[in-house]
Amino acid sequence: MLTLDKIYHAAFTMKNVVRQTDLIYAPNLPSDGELYLKTENLQVTGSFKVRGAYYKISQLSAEEKARGVIACSAGNHAQGVARAASMEGISSKICLPDNAPISKIEATKSYGAEVVLVNGVYDDAYKKARELEKEEQRVFIHPFDDEDVIAGQGTIGLELLEQLPDMDAVIVPIGGGGLIAGLAFAIKSLNPKVKVYGVQVAGAPSMVNAVQHGLIEELAAVTTFADGIAVKRPGDTTFELVKSYVDEVVTVTDDEVASAVLALIERQKLIAEGAGAVAVAAAMFGKVDIKGKKAVCLVSGGNIDVNILSRVITRGLVKAGRFVNLCIALTDKPGQLELVSKTIAEFGGNVVSVQYNRSDENMAINSCFLSLQVETRDYAQIEEIKQALNERGLRVVPGRG
Amino acid sequence: MLTLDKIYHAAFTMKNVVRQTDLIYAPNLPSDGELYLKTENLQVTGSFKVRGAYYKISQLSAEEKARGVIACSAGNHAQGVARAASMEGISSKICLPDNAPISKIEATKSYGAEVVLVNGVYDDAYKKARELEKEEQRVFIHPFDDEDVIAGQGTIGLELLEQLPDMDAVIVPIGGGGLIAGLAFAIKSLNPKVKVYGVQVAGAPSMVNAVQHGLIEELAAVTTFADGIAVKRPGDTTFELVKSYVDEVVTVTDDEVASAVLALIERQKLIAEGAGAVAVAAAMFGKVDIKGKKAVCLVSGGNIDVNILSRVITRGLVKAGRFVNLCIALTDKPGQLELVSKTIAEFGGNVVSVQYNRSDENMAINSCFLSLQVETRDYAQIEEIKQALNERGLRVVPGRG
Repeated sequence: MLTLDKIYHAAFTMKNVVRQTDLIYAPNLPSDGELYLKTENLQVTGSFKVRGAYYKISQLSAEEKARGVIACSAGNHAQGVARAASMEGISSKICLPDNAPISKIEATKSYGAEVVLVNGVYDDAYKKARELEKEEQRVFIHPFDDEDVIAGQGTIGLELLEQLPDMDAVIVPIGGGGLIAGLAFAIKSLNPKVKVYGVQVAGAPSMVNAVQHGLIEELAAVTTFADGIAVKRPGDTTFELVKSYVDEVVTVTDDEVASAVLALIERQKLIAEGAGAVAVAAAMFGKVDIKGKKAVCLVSGGNIDVNILSRVITRGLVKAGRFVNLCIALTDKPGQLELVSKTIAEFGGNVVSVQYNRSDENMAINSCFLSLQVETRDYAQIEEIKQALNERGLRVVPGRG
Repeated sequence: MLTLDKIYHAAFTMKNVVRQTDLIYAPNLPSDGELYLKTENLQVTGSFKVRGAYYKISQLSAEEKARGVIACSAGNHAQGVARAASMEGISSKICLPDNAPISKIEATKSYGAEVVLVNGVYDDAYKKARELEKEEQRVFIHPFDDEDVIAGQGTIGLELLEQLPDMDAVIVPIGGGGLIAGLAFAIKSLNPKVKVYGVQVAGAPSMVNAVQHGLIEELAAVTTFADGIAVKRPGDTTFELVKSYVDEVVTVTDDEVASAVLALIERQKLIAEGAGAVAVAAAMFGKVDIKGKKAVCLVSGGNIDVNILSRVITRGLVKAGRFVNLCIALTDKPGQLELVSKTIAEFGGNVVSVQYNRSDENMAINSCFLSLQVETRDYAQIEEIKQALNERGLRVVPGRG
C-alpha cells in the first residue's frame, strides 16, 4: 500500500540524484488564476520520470540488480530508467519502437542503456520487452502502474508543499496516471484543502473515460502530438488513486496544447513537450476553476523533437494570427507580384516565402495562383491586408494558401 | 567608485523584486569543461537587465522619482526599466526604434511603460530619449555605463559565489559591458582565483577591439542576430573595469551562436536569445580554456522573437546535418518524383516539402529542377542519400536547393 512514509523515503533516497526543480511564478501567462510553474522539464533527463524510475531501481534487491532491468517506452521513461540504472551501476535494456525520434534514441543510449529497436509501435515494443524480461531474467520496470514508481513521482508533491505552502490548486498531466497518483496522494494526505486537477489531451482521454464510466476501458487508438501522454490504458493502481484523491479530470485539444507550448517559449523561456504543456493549456483555456487562486501547473517534461517543435511554433503563430498563408489568384502579367508585395508591406506584413503555381486545374490559362507566407501582428492586421488586396483587384482565395 | 559594499547593498535592495535564478548543471552540452548555467533568461522580464535598472531607480531621490525616468533600448533594458519603474511606482517612458519586434514593444508596454516609437534605428531612439530627458526633465537610465546599474548586475556574481563556491571560471556575454563589469568586480574582489571570460559576437566586437587597442573606438556598423549585444561603443566605466578584472575577451560567430541556441533548447529545455547564448557558444566551440574546469556560462536573456527563433532552429538543424535542402535536375517525365521520394525514404530521410521549377534558364526544355526540404539524421546520411540519388540517374545539383 502507498504510504506517506514511502514517499518521504523516496525523497530521501533520491536526494543526490534528482534536482529539486525550481517553482517559477508566471504572471505573464494568460489565465484568471495566479500561476506557478513546477519546472520538471528542467529535471535531469528532461522529465520527472527519472524520479519514479530511480526509486524503483534503488529498491531492488542485490539479486534483482544483478539481473539488470528492462523497460519499454517511446521516450521519457526510457531516459529515466537508463539514467537511474547507470546511477545504481546496473545493466539496462530499453525497447523502443523503431519510429521513435532519433534524438530520443540517442539520448537513451547516452545515459548508458542498451537500446533494442522494435519494428512497429509502442505496443510491439512492450511485447518485446516482456519477452526479454523472461528470456533474460531481467526486472521489468513499469512506466506508471507500480507503487514504488508512483511513490517516486509523489516526491514532487512534497516539494510543492514546501515551495508554495499556501497553494490552492495543482494541475497535473495524466498519461498512465503515475505522476498524478503519487502527487495527489502526497498533497491530499498533508493538506486536503489543495485541489488536484488532472489533464489529458482530447485525442487520448483514457483516464477521463475511466473516471466517467467508473471502469477502465482500453482506447482503440490515440491521436495527439503529445506523445508523452498518448496512453491507451491507464494503470489499475493509478486509477484507484485518481478516483480517491483527484478532484477533477479534464481534457484540452492539441491546438490548445500548441498554444501553451508557444506561450511557455515566449513568456517563460521554457521548452515543454506537448505532454509537458497540457496543465498550462488547461489553465490558459479555462478548463479548471482557478479564478483568483494560486495554482501550480506541473510542466512535466521538455523532450520534444526539434523538428516537431518547429512545426508547433508555426502552428501556434498561425493560431495567434501572427503567421498566415495567403493564396492569391492573379492575372499572369508583369507587375502583379510587385503590387502584392507593396500592398502587404504597406500594411506591415513581412513576406517570408512565395510560390507561383501556373498549372492549377481551376485556373484560366492566363492566370496563376500565388502562395505567400507572411509574418503578421494579429488577426486584425491579416484582415486589413486581405481587404486591401481585394480592393486592388488581387483576389484572395479563401481556404487556400 | 564601485565597491563591494554597493553590490551587497544592491543585492539587499532587490531581494523581493528579482529572482535568485537557478544554477543548472549541464553535463549534456558538448564541451571539455564541466558546465553550469546561470539562468538569467528565467529572470523576471526574461533577462538580467532588471537588476541594474531596479537598483539604479531605487537609488533615485524622491525628487528625481517624481520627475520619472526615460530610457532607450531595442529590448531587454526597456523591459527592465519599465518593470523596475512600476515596482517603485514611478512614471517611465521608453524610446524604441520603430522596427523593434512587436513582441518586445508589447512586453515593454505590459510592464507599465509609455512607449515612444522612433523612426529609424537604435541611435535615433537614443537621440530622441536624450531630447525627452531635457524637455520633460526625466532622469535618463543608461543601459550599462552607470555605477549603480553595474552594481546591480554585479549581484549575479555574489549569487554565483554562493551557488558554486568552487567554480573555476565564469563566461559572460559582453554588449556595452555592464554585466561583466559588475560581475567580474564582485567575483575577483572575493575570489581572485576564479577566471572571468568575456564573449562578444564577431559582428560586434567593440570591447574586444578596445581591449586589444587599449582604447575605445566606435564601430561603424554591427551585424549579428544577437541584437542584445549589438553595441557600437562600450562604456567608459565598463571598459576600465573590464581592463582591470576580466582575464580574456573572445568572439564567436553567429553560426556558433545559432548552434548554442539550438543545443540549449534540445539539451537543456531553455530558450536563450542570441546574446544569451554566446557564453555557451564560447564553451562549446573551445574559445576559452576550461578543460576539466568547473565553468559557469551566464545565460543572460531569453527574449528572442519567435519568428527569429524559428529561423535559428532551422539554421542550427542545417548546420548539424539534420535538415537539408536538395536540388535535383530531372528529366520531366512521369515517375521521377516517385523515384526521388522512394530513394530518400529508403535511406531514412523525411521529406517535408517539395517545389518544382520548370522555367529555370539553365535547364533544357524537357527538364526541371526539383527542390526538396528533407529532415535527416546527420551529414553521413545526407551523403548516402545524395550518392543513391546520383547512382539512380537523379542528378543532385551542388550548391543549390
